Amino acid sequence: MDTFPIFASLNLDFVFHPRSVAVVGASASSGEEGQVILSNIIAGQFGGKVFPVNPREDLILGLPVFRRMHDIHQTVDLAVITTPVETVLPVLQECGKKGVKAVLVMTSGFGEESEAGRDLESRMVSLCHEMDMVLIGPNTAGILCSHSGLLATRVPIWPLNGEVAIVSQSGDLGNQLLHWATQQGLGVSVFVGSGDEAMVTVPDYMEYLECDKNTRIIVLYLERVRDVRRFFDISKRINRTKPIILLKGGRSEARLAVSTSRRGATRDELKLFSAACRQAGLLEVSLSSHLLDLAAGFCSLPLPKGDRVGIVTLGGGWGVLTADMCNEMGLTVPDLPEEIIQTIGHYLPPFWSRRNPIDLVGTQNREVPLVAVEELLKWNGIDAVISLGIVGRLELARRLIRSTIDVDNTMPLEFLEQTQAMIQQYEKSYIERLVELMEVYEKPILSVSLASSTQDGAIRYVPGARYNAVIYRTPESAVNVLTRMHHYSSFLAKSL
Amino acid sequence: MDTFPIFASLNLDFVFHPRSVAVVGASASSGEEGQVILSNIIAGQFGGKVFPVNPREDLILGLPVFRRMHDIHQTVDLAVITTPVETVLPVLQECGKKGVKAVLVMTSGFGEESEAGRDLESRMVSLCHEMDMVLIGPNTAGILCSHSGLLATRVPIWPLNGEVAIVSQSGDLGNQLLHWATQQGLGVSVFVGSGDEAMVTVPDYMEYLECDKNTRIIVLYLERVRDVRRFFDISKRINRTKPIILLKGGRSEARLAVSTSRRGATRDELKLFSAACRQAGLLEVSLSSHLLDLAAGFCSLPLPKGDRVGIVTLGGGWGVLTADMCNEMGLTVPDLPEEIIQTIGHYLPPFWSRRNPIDLVGTQNREVPLVAVEELLKWNGIDAVISLGIVGRLELARRLIRSTIDVDNTMPLEFLEQTQAMIQQYEKSYIERLVELMEVYEKPILSVSLASSTQDGAIRYVPGARYNAVIYRTPESAVNVLTRMHHYSSFLAKSL
Repeated sequence: MDTFPIFASLNLDFVFHPRSVAVVGASASSGEEGQVILSNIIAGQFGGKVFPVNPREDLILGLPVFRRMHDIHQTVDLAVITTPVETVLPVLQECGKKGVKAVLVMTSGFGEESEAGRDLESRMVSLCHEMDMVLIGPNTAGILCSHSGLLATRVPIWPLNGEVAIVSQSGDLGNQLLHWATQQGLGVSVFVGSGDEAMVTVPDYMEYLECDKNTRIIVLYLERVRDVRRFFDISKRINRTKPIILLKGGRSEARLAVSTSRRGATRDELKLFSAACRQAGLLEVSLSSHLLDLAAGFCSLPLPKGDRVGIVTLGGGWGVLTADMCNEMGLTVPDLPEEIIQTIGHYLPPFWSRRNPIDLVGTQNREVPLVAVEELLKWNGIDAVISLGIVGRLELARRLIRSTIDVDNTMPLEFLEQTQAMIQQYEKSYIERLVELMEVYEKPILSVSLASSTQDGAIRYVPGARYNAVIYRTPESAVNVLTRMHHYSSFLAKSL
Repeated sequence: MDTFPIFASLNLDFVFHPRSVAVVGASASSGEEGQVILSNIIAGQFGGKVFPVNPREDLILGLPVFRRMHDIHQTVDLAVITTPVETVLPVLQECGKKGVKAVLVMTSGFGEESEAGRDLESRMVSLCHEMDMVLIGPNTAGILCSHSGLLATRVPIWPLNGEVAIVSQSGDLGNQLLHWATQQGLGVSVFVGSGDEAMVTVPDYMEYLECDKNTRIIVLYLERVRDVRRFFDISKRINRTKPIILLKGGRSEARLAVSTSRRGATRDELKLFSAACRQAGLLEVSLSSHLLDLAAGFCSLPLPKGDRVGIVTLGGGWGVLTADMCNEMGLTVPDLPEEIIQTIGHYLPPFWSRRNPIDLVGTQNREVPLVAVEELLKWNGIDAVISLGIVGRLELARRLIRSTIDVDNTMPLEFLEQTQAMIQQYEKSYIERLVELMEVYEKPILSVSLASSTQDGAIRYVPGARYNAVIYRTPESAVNVLTRMHHYSSFLAKSL
């Protein structure tokens, strides 16, 4: 079935850190692929040289255009190819002669389902091997490397610089993940749409990421795995130091038709695949939104050392639901020792819950949320804290202030602005303190926003801190992430 | 256990549609409960009269203040009480003498866990019965009635006017639901935090909502149900005409302690409760975020008549994942007849998927998404359509335009603005057409945004249309909602 030779260690350095990039098929027409990709590379402030190649243009986006590859009298490390299917082979030939190290074939329509398409792909691969070029794609959504500033994708999405690598066999899901990463403030090291994987396959990217010092977490979207044994051999090894979070598409029976056309697996193989993931400690998820939820937790928080959760909540309902979910997911919500009840009781009205979840009954006291969180962290009876509704008051306060301005014209505007600034400051110092506490006690704190403003990302960075605050929109997200971090942590402990 | 008498039909008209409201404990100090609630009532543009009551003030927020209830020489339908626990009984007495019809006791701290607290509550109830007043709460998060313009809550959140009623036994979860409703553009008819439910309980609110012509969907967050039989008798009846979506908090064993203190149920009772929900066709969910996802679907879309789903997707990955989830949730993704393949094939490159999901392979053609959706709807082999990634291109286009401006100073700004306006117009007409198609074919279309802008709500209204477009953020949300709508629809069909 697998007709392509596999090379254990392809050198992908020139893919992600090229010194220069040629865009073959660069275009001046707004909206055309060759224009969009060139524009994105330039807008991404790529540090190296950029050479547009097009036989019919002189100047595109202020850059001189080369008619053919051999007109470029400087070294070209990476060629991004956007020309039509029938031109790709000759273009690859030109690239090879020019001494290009890697080619990114964004062109689609090879029709890997047809004999002719497979034949064309296999000729591309042979040619690239002959010419000693690494071939990415074809039919790839492109690549992004935050650390080299290279953004060679169709959609100009620039997430923050960070430590999460994303490899996606689907372009649209890849774009979606980048979009969510940007919304959530998740830092990305590398993105690659692996496309049809004619030469470079997912395990190759993983081996590259294993050694990439900028990457600490690996997120995969897979529809087919060609060499399952190699995938698991590599995953098992890497997962011990860099958690691998993955979503397998094409799981259900009705999808097997599609999967098969994409060289997919049978139903039993899919079951075996999931079992192998569990055995290797890989973090398989079944919902797309869980991929980045988990990535946010893993890249921001210390791992929990056990399953015991302390819950601090601004209101009763959230606490009840969160405890329900903890129990349903196999986590424990232990009773509090009398000592902690005493300490926290000093700050709360007599009718407070006196148990875990600690219900702060909507307290306006600014100290007590942190007192409660720290009391829990100090105690050796818990391994993690979920904090509900402390962050997110700002949005409610904003509404309150806006409402007050509407009805009370005697209210000095400055007072209202001050109130807002005060809450903003409180939230900032609360987050700084959370991050500090995680460093002191080496236990994760997962927050849930009572009313997140749409502008705020899930991750809040504190300069110089080892960990980040993570603020989920729902308790279900927080509980799910904590559960999976617990599984991963137990897996590591067991496999020592 | 239940020491309070239950009255079958309490008149709640004066609660939600009072002609006048007194706020007892109204305050001039910004941030105090008595100030916030008064301010919210005024800012909410309540149409009736508002009387602040406070013995130590003359003017609050521009309104003359009354020292005591009997100083008000006009009719008072509703009294909102925010004064401390120990004053509530005398205040109720005053209200009764004044002829008030309903009291909303926002005061908390009655300590229903203590003998004294329960005693106080039972004296309040007796007093209200004697004086012929309806008692809401105590310890309630307040009420909102979009249609009378009454917003008597601690947090000034005004969702759109609409048909979804929310009843929450938890104040914080209630506020959260209102916040999400606002973000999602979900229209709300009535919100009530039922608090300690000393007199008026959830079934009472439900009976009110049954007759409320503004309410079409009922969302419940429950932690305890006092009279389970009455709850199910009423729910079963109402659910046939107004779908009831509910989340039961306090499900897990570890929560029983808390639940018990709030008169909760045992573990077996909880299992029975869920079984009874299924039997009554109630839509029980286990995650808070599902409450409003479902409400959005039920209030916007026609019910599917079967389980067969057609999927249209702008990219392959989303389609694969969505089909996976449909199958896992018990829906069917049938093969397409040759006729539909032919019709859609005219618009797509030769290498398109030729099956369900219909993968539009990122087409820029503006017609084909709607052609594909309509072909599916026309066909009697499907009952619902999920459309992925058509809506949401605007956000990506915005990014593209911003990026192009950055790198190309020859680009006339007007051209870019025009492009953006064009896409905006396309999205608008696409949505209008979806809504039209639903009306013509009476089948639901659930959309998923490829890259939702954070400003856009999940629901898009088209003036004068019978249905609304619903655009979820993830395929999992769309599949989950469709599955539950299918269950509800089958339940109705079976119980005819």
